[in-house]
Amino acid sequence: MSEALKIAVAGLGTVGGGTVRLLAEHAGLLAERAGRPLRLVATAALERPADLPLDGIPTFTDARRLIAETEFDVLVELMGGSGGIALEVATAALAKGRHVVTANKAMIAHHGARLAELAETSGGVFAFEAAVAGGIPVIKALREGLAANRLQQVYGILNGTCNYILTTMRESGRDFAEVLAEAQALGYAEADPSFDIDGVDTAHKLAILTSLAFGTVIDLDRVHIEGIRHVSALDIQYAEELGYRIKLLGVARRTAAGVEQRVHPCMVPIRSSIGRVDGVFNAVVAEGDYVGRTVFEGRGAGANPTASAVVADLLDIATGRRTPTFGIPWHRLQALEPAPMEGHRGAYYIRLMVLDVPGVFADIAAALRDEEVSMEAVLQRGRAPGETVPVVLTVHDTLEAAMMRAIGRISRIDAVVETPRLIRIEDF
Amino acid sequence: MSEALKIAVAGLGTVGGGTVRLLAEHAGLLAERAGRPLRLVATAALERPADLPLDGIPTFTDARRLIAETEFDVLVELMGGSGGIALEVATAALAKGRHVVTANKAMIAHHGARLAELAETSGGVFAFEAAVAGGIPVIKALREGLAANRLQQVYGILNGTCNYILTTMRESGRDFAEVLAEAQALGYAEADPSFDIDGVDTAHKLAILTSLAFGTVIDLDRVHIEGIRHVSALDIQYAEELGYRIKLLGVARRTAAGVEQRVHPCMVPIRSSIGRVDGVFNAVVAEGDYVGRTVFEGRGAGANPTASAVVADLLDIATGRRTPTFGIPWHRLQALEPAPMEGHRGAYYIRLMVLDVPGVFADIAAALRDEEVSMEAVLQRGRAPGETVPVVLTVHDTLEAAMMRAIGRISRIDAVVETPRLIRIEDF
Repeated sequence: MSEALKIAVAGLGTVGGGTVRLLAEHAGLLAERAGRPLRLVATAALERPADLPLDGIPTFTDARRLIAETEFDVLVELMGGSGGIALEVATAALAKGRHVVTANKAMIAHHGARLAELAETSGGVFAFEAAVAGGIPVIKALREGLAANRLQQVYGILNGTCNYILTTMRESGRDFAEVLAEAQALGYAEADPSFDIDGVDTAHKLAILTSLAFGTVIDLDRVHIEGIRHVSALDIQYAEELGYRIKLLGVARRTAAGVEQRVHPCMVPIRSSIGRVDGVFNAVVAEGDYVGRTVFEGRGAGANPTASAVVADLLDIATGRRTPTFGIPWHRLQALEPAPMEGHRGAYYIRLMVLDVPGVFADIAAALRDEEVSMEAVLQRGRAPGETVPVVLTVHDTLEAAMMRAIGRISRIDAVVETPRLIRIEDF
Repeated sequence: MSEALKIAVAGLGTVGGGTVRLLAEHAGLLAERAGRPLRLVATAALERPADLPLDGIPTFTDARRLIAETEFDVLVELMGGSGGIALEVATAALAKGRHVVTANKAMIAHHGARLAELAETSGGVFAFEAAVAGGIPVIKALREGLAANRLQQVYGILNGTCNYILTTMRESGRDFAEVLAEAQALGYAEADPSFDIDGVDTAHKLAILTSLAFGTVIDLDRVHIEGIRHVSALDIQYAEELGYRIKLLGVARRTAAGVEQRVHPCMVPIRSSIGRVDGVFNAVVAEGDYVGRTVFEGRGAGANPTASAVVADLLDIATGRRTPTFGIPWHRLQALEPAPMEGHRGAYYIRLMVLDVPGVFADIAAALRDEEVSMEAVLQRGRAPGETVPVVLTVHDTLEAAMMRAIGRISRIDAVVETPRLIRIEDF
């Protein structure tokens, strides 16, 4: 059996701990699959958790010292943060010609192109299966398994916290704030949840998928981002009635105008593959010209699924399986030509809170007609003269810019008493 | 750019044609991803289809001459058949130290262990992503993406013809024979459909998945096989009523008694990932100790999805990505310890056609009680004294041997007028 692959793990939080446990528990199995031992040689963490199998393995409190003073083949960076110390040690390790494995989607989304260049010019590997969709091997699928295809689109449920909140809202009929508070109490959402619920985490992951799918330089700045704060129990109930589920999606799509990258709540058919993915599960759908539609589903977060992905990358490195970081060599990645959001075409769900007075609906209909927005369905239950009632509309494929103009005009109608709620519909 | 990978394709039928087209259509994209051109240098087929992009590329009528007279790096074997000429040329190519890519599950199921040994000792690659679940990169997922896990089970819908027939039976309420005839007319089923509908094709694929999942020598002889000929419209209707769908599944599971390998119609919950996979789609579920449950879904057959998988293997070979054929080196694969089917524990659906005479149900219940089979639900609609009526039972987890004894006894009750129908239930 060949020499051991020497592994340094920086960060001993949830995922770092899971990775250390996996390496210890499956040492024999991993050595068999890699043809050589995978040996943990050092770690870095501010505190060394007592319950990890770290006997005889040093823990540095400063990850920079780990890089400088340890002999290792691969740095596993699991500290997190888009820049700072994580970026510093990843850069230092790659510059030394070492390999870096990370689950740090923020760092990849912000600095992935540069890290790929550094890795590929210095002979190291920069790998991040764990950064998107946890244990589901979707990076490998896009980069290798589906590599014979020209992909048309890739989309998915990429954030388990949001999917858990939306699923619980639907099942319990409760509203966003209440379910979020419960998710925080249960540890499914962070104390500061904005990263998840405002769609930033999904955007990081989507930017990575876009680069892999289309051979473009990662471009987080051109992701249109909306979160789930404004999704109400009422909208979820209407969605159900219309045959849809509301999911926070990341969608990357090739269009005639360029590549769309968008993160927003979306109504998808209940019967679609993605509409049925509930709770903390993630799913990624990739559509290629030869393969058609493929769906990958599984646990998108948590110590163990994420560790599974981290160690899959280590096995690739141990066996010498190499693929360019984003599927093609860094210097051949194209700049992304972004399709502006105003040019997006799609169907929409609109919920208005309206004072039930004569003539309102005519005003709403006129605003839509003037922007050439064509209505598909209207839901309005009973009448309540003089009171506020919800009016729900769905409209056929229309131009985002026209939709926004119509919504602007509708929101200025006196009898429309709240900000109109608009949710895009995708008939996947 | 490095030297071209020289590819010889033996077999220009559906999948061969698709592969040739893909190589031509995506030549630029593939060269970019592989870092070198993928060049078709020769083909073999009894007839050379006029519509394929084969200008300047010779076609041998005898694939053996292709091997003997052509300089190539990879043989793509797409002729089919478990032995014969396919096996002969695959063996010859590997013996020369060349690589072999194939979609031929029958050949792998029967001779995979020997071909792996030959490949690994002569320095070639023997790859078969296209052999299971068409375009879904499930071989790669098991061998690489999930390789950090000890897998507990892998199961799936592996035959699109059967899934199409069962889906159409459900949607149309028609019976098996009629839907099969229609599927044959539409080209979804072969003139001789037994290979598909009797579960043999699924068994071939399952035997491959088992080897990959558990590191065991492929062992087709120990697959318990039942097909879908006996699934009736009535059973499909009852399944729906009980909250299940009937699917032909291949299941490989680690149990205390050894590894179960079984192919049979199965009731799975309508809401499960696999219960919702309809029509010609395939799905594979893998459960690992770290990753949890992962689901892979997509098109399991057809020229283009299968070509996508064939060319994915070619890209791995072109870039030098190597994995042992069945995940670990051939000489470390363990003999499979089969769990006998009699020792299987599970839930069951039983449909009896019974003369509605007094006392029958007591006899049935006694047979079950004496074998310690515990009933969960009974469906019997109305009464029809003196006539034949269906009686449907579901039973809790029970031992297969006890179930079979009980069924044997029930079938001997005078008032039970047809062979009892038994379908296993899996609460995935």
